[in-house]
This record gives sequence, C-alpha cells and structure tokens, in this order.
Amino acid sequence: MRSRSVAIIGVSSNFKKAGSPILKNMLDFGFKGKVYPINPRLNSIMGLPVHASVKDIEGQVDLAIISTPPKTVPSILTECSEKKIKAVIINSEGFAETGEEGRKLQQEVANILKSAGIRALGPNTIGVVCPSKGLSTSTVDLRQIKEGNVAFVTQSGLFAGGMLQHIANSELFGLSTAVSLGNKVDIDESDALEFLADDDKTEVIGLYIEGIKDGRKFIHTAKMANAKKPVILVKGGRTPRGAQAALSHTASLATDDKILDAALKQAGIIRANGFCDLMDTITAFAFQPLPKSRRVAIITNTGAYGIIAVDFCISYGLEIANFKPETTARLLEVMEENSKVRNPIDIYPAAVKHGRSKVFETSLDAVLGDEGVDTAIVITWVGGDNMVPECIIAPARRHPEKPVLVSVYGSSASEFRRILGEARIPAYTFAELAVIALSRMYKYAAYKKSLENLR
Amino acid sequence: MRSRSVAIIGVSSNFKKAGSPILKNMLDFGFKGKVYPINPRLNSIMGLPVHASVKDIEGQVDLAIISTPPKTVPSILTECSEKKIKAVIINSEGFAETGEEGRKLQQEVANILKSAGIRALGPNTIGVVCPSKGLSTSTVDLRQIKEGNVAFVTQSGLFAGGMLQHIANSELFGLSTAVSLGNKVDIDESDALEFLADDDKTEVIGLYIEGIKDGRKFIHTAKMANAKKPVILVKGGRTPRGAQAALSHTASLATDDKILDAALKQAGIIRANGFCDLMDTITAFAFQPLPKSRRVAIITNTGAYGIIAVDFCISYGLEIANFKPETTARLLEVMEENSKVRNPIDIYPAAVKHGRSKVFETSLDAVLGDEGVDTAIVITWVGGDNMVPECIIAPARRHPEKPVLVSVYGSSASEFRRILGEARIPAYTFAELAVIALSRMYKYAAYKKSLENLR
Repeated sequence: MRSRSVAIIGVSSNFKKAGSPILKNMLDFGFKGKVYPINPRLNSIMGLPVHASVKDIEGQVDLAIISTPPKTVPSILTECSEKKIKAVIINSEGFAETGEEGRKLQQEVANILKSAGIRALGPNTIGVVCPSKGLSTSTVDLRQIKEGNVAFVTQSGLFAGGMLQHIANSELFGLSTAVSLGNKVDIDESDALEFLADDDKTEVIGLYIEGIKDGRKFIHTAKMANAKKPVILVKGGRTPRGAQAALSHTASLATDDKILDAALKQAGIIRANGFCDLMDTITAFAFQPLPKSRRVAIITNTGAYGIIAVDFCISYGLEIANFKPETTARLLEVMEENSKVRNPIDIYPAAVKHGRSKVFETSLDAVLGDEGVDTAIVITWVGGDNMVPECIIAPARRHPEKPVLVSVYGSSASEFRRILGEARIPAYTFAELAVIALSRMYKYAAYKKSLENLR
Repeated sequence: MRSRSVAIIGVSSNFKKAGSPILKNMLDFGFKGKVYPINPRLNSIMGLPVHASVKDIEGQVDLAIISTPPKTVPSILTECSEKKIKAVIINSEGFAETGEEGRKLQQEVANILKSAGIRALGPNTIGVVCPSKGLSTSTVDLRQIKEGNVAFVTQSGLFAGGMLQHIANSELFGLSTAVSLGNKVDIDESDALEFLADDDKTEVIGLYIEGIKDGRKFIHTAKMANAKKPVILVKGGRTPRGAQAALSHTASLATDDKILDAALKQAGIIRANGFCDLMDTITAFAFQPLPKSRRVAIITNTGAYGIIAVDFCISYGLEIANFKPETTARLLEVMEENSKVRNPIDIYPAAVKHGRSKVFETSLDAVLGDEGVDTAIVITWVGGDNMVPECIIAPARRHPEKPVLVSVYGSSASEFRRILGEARIPAYTFAELAVIALSRMYKYAAYKKSLENLR
C-alpha cells in the first residue's frame, strides 16, 4: 500500500491480457511513484521503456505485479527474490481454483514465497486500490473512485472491480483502501484486518469472503479490529450449495455457518444480508456518528411512510422517542395542531402553509436538540416543490453528535440524494433500508459500550 | 374510472389549495372528457368557464371531485345528489383522522351518501389515476406515469403521489390504475380489489393499507382476486406503535397482525416486507411469466455474486438446476472448460476470449432451452466494455414462457437497466433482490397450481 516503485510483469500489446490494462489504470489513476513495465519482447509501451526482467531495473522496486501465465510465476518469483522485492501481487489465474494441478502450482508458489521472505497477495486477484496514493493494481478502470474512510476487502477479483465501480457511481462512501484477496496463498483476511485496524485513514471495514483460512485467527483478529472500528461482513457460501460454488471460484473450503455466526455475534461483528445491505450499512457508518442509544425521531412528509418506518424501527429493536415539552412547544410553532406533534412527525399539512423546507428544518432542529432523541430519520418525497437539501443538512450540522439518516424518493430524488451524500448524510430511496442500517449502528454502539463496561 | 365528465369543486386562484392543482394536472394528463371547474366566486380559470355550483352545469356529470373545507362537504354532496351525480372523490381532509369532531362529520357524510346512492372515494385522498383514460384526480404532477398492467391501491394520499412519482421515474412497471382510498367513508380496499380483479388492463395488484374495514370481506375478496392475478400487499401498522400512528393518519383501527398474516397465507397472498420489496416484487410479476417450478439457472460474470445468488436461492426455497447433457455441450462451445459449465455459470474467463455479449447470449439461450430449467437469473456488472443489453433481451424473447431476471451494477448500469426495463425484463441493482422477487413468483405459481389441483 505504501509502495513508491512498482514493476508490472506481463505487459503486452494485446490489451485482452491483464498486464497492459493494469499499467494503463495505474497511470490514469495518477500514481506518483515509479512504474516499470516488464516484458522480454517489448521495447516500450505507453511512452515508458520496457525492461526484460525486474533484474534489469536499476533502482529499488517495492512491489511487483505479476500478470503472466501461471506456469511462469515460480521463475518470476525467483527473479523478484533476486531483485530483493519484498511484496508481490499475483494477478494471474489458473491456480488452486482450477483443480489438482493448479493446487500443486500454488503450493510451489507458497514455498518460494516463504523461503524468499516475500509477502504476496493472490493469485487470482486484482490486488489493491489506494486512492490517496493514486495506487491501483486493478484491470478495471476505477478513476471515479473517491477517497474516503472505508476499506473494502473482498476475496473475489472481478467482483471487487464491479462493486468498486458501483460504489464510485453511487452517492456512496469513499474508500481508504480496497483489497482483493483472491486465492490467499499468503496474505489472508486476517492479515488484511490486522493492517486495516491500525490504518488511520480507515474508519469502517467492509468484508466479502468466501472462505476463512484460519478460523481461530480470523475471529481473534476481527474481534480486535471490530473493537476499534466497525467490521461489516458478507460471507459467500453460507449454504452447502453456495459453498460448493465457492470451492470452484476461489478454492475456498466450507465453514460451518452456525459456528461462524455464533463467533461473529460474540465478537460484535455485523453480518450483512447480501450486498445491498452491505452497501447501505457501510454508508451509514461511513457518514454518521454512532447513536447514543436506540430512541428515534421520525419526520416525514407522508404519514404512510412514517408508519412503515415505525414498524421497522420496532421490528429491528429501536424505540420511538417521546419528545420533551420544550420540543413539543418548538414543533407547535410550525405544526400548529397538537395532533401533529407526535412521533412520527407528519409535516403535512403544516408544509402547505410554511413550505416543506421550513417545516423540515424547524422540526429536525427541534428533535435533534431533544436529549431524549438519539437519531433522526427524515423521510420525504421530492418533486414539483422547492424543498432544498439544506433544510436537512443545516440542522444535521448543528447537531453533529447525533446521526441523521434520510429516505428520499420522487421525481427529483436522485439529485437530492447526491447532494445529501456529498454532505455525508446517508440518503436511501426506501425508509426501511435507512432503519435497518441504523439498527446495525445501534447494535454496534451497544457492543462498544459493553466493551467499555468490561474495562 | 370510466367518467367522461368531471366537476372539480373548489378550484381557486390560490394554488396552495388543492382544487387548482387537480384541475391543472387533469388538463396536463390529457383527459379527453369534459371538465367543469366549480367556485361561486370565480368566472374563469385556466381558460375554462367556472360554474358557481354543479347544479349550474347543463350536461351530465359522471364524477365530482370535492376539494373544499370539510364543513362544506355535506351541503356540496346534497347539491351533487340534486344534480344526480353518482360518484364523488372527496379530496378534502379534516375528517375522522383528526378526532371526535371529524369523526362525526364523516358519519354525516356517510349518511348523505347512503341516502343519495352516491359512491364515494375518500375523504383524505388524492383519488384515482388512470393513464389509459388520461384521468388524474391527484394534486401531484404525474405526467410521467406510463400506462401498464399494474394497479396500485394505497390508503394514503400524499404517499400515493410520491410513490407514483418514484414509479414514473424508475425503470419500473407502468400502471393500469392507481387508487388512493383515504379514510374509506364508502369505497374500501375490498371494493377496489373487486373492481381490479375484473379489470382487463390489470394483471398485477399492489396494495398498501393501514386498516381493514371488514376483515372477513377483505380476505374473501382478496382471495378471489388473488386466484385471478397476483395481489401483493404491504400493511402499515403491523406493530402496536405503528398501529397507533396509523390511527392518527387515516383513522385506521388496529388489526391483529398474526391473524391477518395467517389469513393472507391461506389465501396465497404475498405480503411484501416494506416498499422496496413491494416495488421489486411487482416489477417481476408485471414483466415476466410465472416460473413452472423452482429450478434456477444462474449466469454471472463474477463468481462472487453467483455464490451469493445461490445462497439466497436456497434460503428462499428455490433450487439450483442441473443441466441436461445437451445444455452442457452447448455451453462448452463457448466456455471451453468442463469446470466452467456448472450452475452457477461464471462466464469469466470465456468472456475475455469471446466477449461478454456472445458468452451471455449463448449461455442464456442454452439454459432457457433446457427443460430442467424454469428461470434464469443473469448477473453482470457493466462498465468499460462493449456488452449490449440485447444479449439478454434476444434469448429471453426466444423463450417467452420462462422468466428471466437480471442484476446489473457498475458504471454503465443505469442506462443498461433502463433498456432492459423497456424490454420488460426486471433489472435490479443487487442480485439478492432479484432472487427474492423470483421466490415470490414461484410461491404464487405453486399456490395457483394448488388451486387447479383442487378443482
């Protein structure tokens, strides 16, 4: 992650092979260190001179990315060792995921790495993406990735690329680091967690894994990491049929899911239910502080969605806050009717008189100022009116210690969500997804509190 | 719904009052019948002459929309009765949802309606939207609503408006009819279901209700409707705290949720878990045929999401299909390796050689032609490649009897989803949502089959 000089072994004039897209993306991504393309049969590529071997490079090489046919990998590693390269990313596929022969080759690679003292990511990986360093070893164009506080670790290569593109193109969080583990001949999920737990730029860790190399070590490291920052996990292959598919994908062995589930719960680790849930949950953690407790204020411009949000809050272990008299008095200034200042707050019809922006701003400010409220959920549909995102952003900024989550739908929703996202307010289409994400934050906050009480 | 002449009572030069937005939307929506604005203190509005009372209109009036202060509604209804108007939509609020006084007023309205033989929707409703007739009685601008095969019934007024805007602005289904029930002084959910069960243009019914006026009648009607076409329901106020909120929203009384749940299950009615689930499920039913049975083929360009999809299939009662030898042989033509023709099919790395479009098209066509496959789920991320939606659309069209559902993410996903939506292929961002929607289709298909076996 901190490499200043990178060799890319296996660049080619054929862009269908991985080496050259990696080189192109590295340059596009704005890597500030030195880049050395390697191929014995080329003189130059993309304006850079090409060396025949890493051994021909004059300066030091911190990292080698290997993207050559699998059978050539052992000899290339030997050359890397002779060049005293201490870190490699093996992008090449065709190892343990393909069967017995590949498994043997991967074992040979493992032995070379060990005796040479080289740390390796992969094989069968797109490697790492680190926006703050302009470092991207991926074959996928990730120029749109924003820098942020989320680390995303995935076992799968291509999937990482696609999901990172999804993140880059949504009103979602930015990334501190993305790591694709692949077949894990050396570096595994536990190593990644250990690194990220101490990484200053990482405040939230999202994890997709298919197999666990060492269960005891993993739970130990994950627990340690989770005590510092939230770890949110999706495990592929929960079911026997899914585990079978994982075996041929990344050579991952099945785990007893019930045992894993119990261990994760004990370590306070959030297990997301698929990728939609993973993205929604990470967004909440990345953008907002943890709630002090479970008492939620709901402000909505449609009664119906307020009711659904209440149902989801209750089902997911949250509470509907009771307002203090001062809050009720402040709400009454705009709501005018006693029947309208209950929680959930339905800003209609007050919004007809005062405008949505004013009523949302006043009521959000009032409930966030109430010491009996830990979190506010704002639900609104936007379209054909003059409601401005600032009416949510401003009161949220005045109360930075309390999380605010938003559900926005309607004809102008996507622009509205984008603006909220830029202001680091999680904006979902559907309110129930905001509630579920909040319930996970509350759970994590309660877990952290239980750790403090143990001290 | 079939009205050819509509009076709008309560138009005003003040656009904050509901009457005039209703008139404007009616004209914008392209209503082809006659429209009569009513207000005793105006001469003309939006180029139309204004009458002082419905009694001053010369021709017949099929429907009156009443948008005046609540206390004036009884006398207006009397005038409607004298004009022999048989249908009214009471847009006005301030009835049973506001407390004792409003409840009395609503009872007075009920009595007048009964003795005059007028059928009424509302009060506290935005009424109906019927794209094929250009009829919209809503205060919300709904010009972008597409005509389609889905009827959407909701109890809430504003919510209907917002959710309809969401539908109009997504790659979602079109509408045959939308009905907002409001306080249900006369027409209720059972009446709406009875009408829609026999409506030729409606093939799927989505329902959001907060209360049920007559439980026995509702279950009876919903069961009858559901035997003809799928009824998908979200009930607000499942929890006691949610039910309390529903009381002050649409004066809905609490229902014992466990009893309701059991009755719905017996009637084979799908209960969606919130609005995200409702929209996803309706989209699948609206666009695709029912699966014959539960055997799913999964084709993906990332192994990871194939594994997650398998896990969700198993968890939601679906099966992973086994391919026939002829299918395997066809798949081998592009996949080339025996290890790659298992289900889920990971088109990588075959896609590197042949291009994604070709491999997706060939493999989707192969699995849909397999009699052991009932449904195909295609998962792909798109961005930076030349994959065309046609590679999914074409094979799906060649096998119109089998449902195809798609998950698309990545940098070009939204345009890709839009094109699939136009071709009536449900396109979700996240594969697990496609699986859940499919599981509901399978459940409904199994219920229909059980009904046939009873005959």
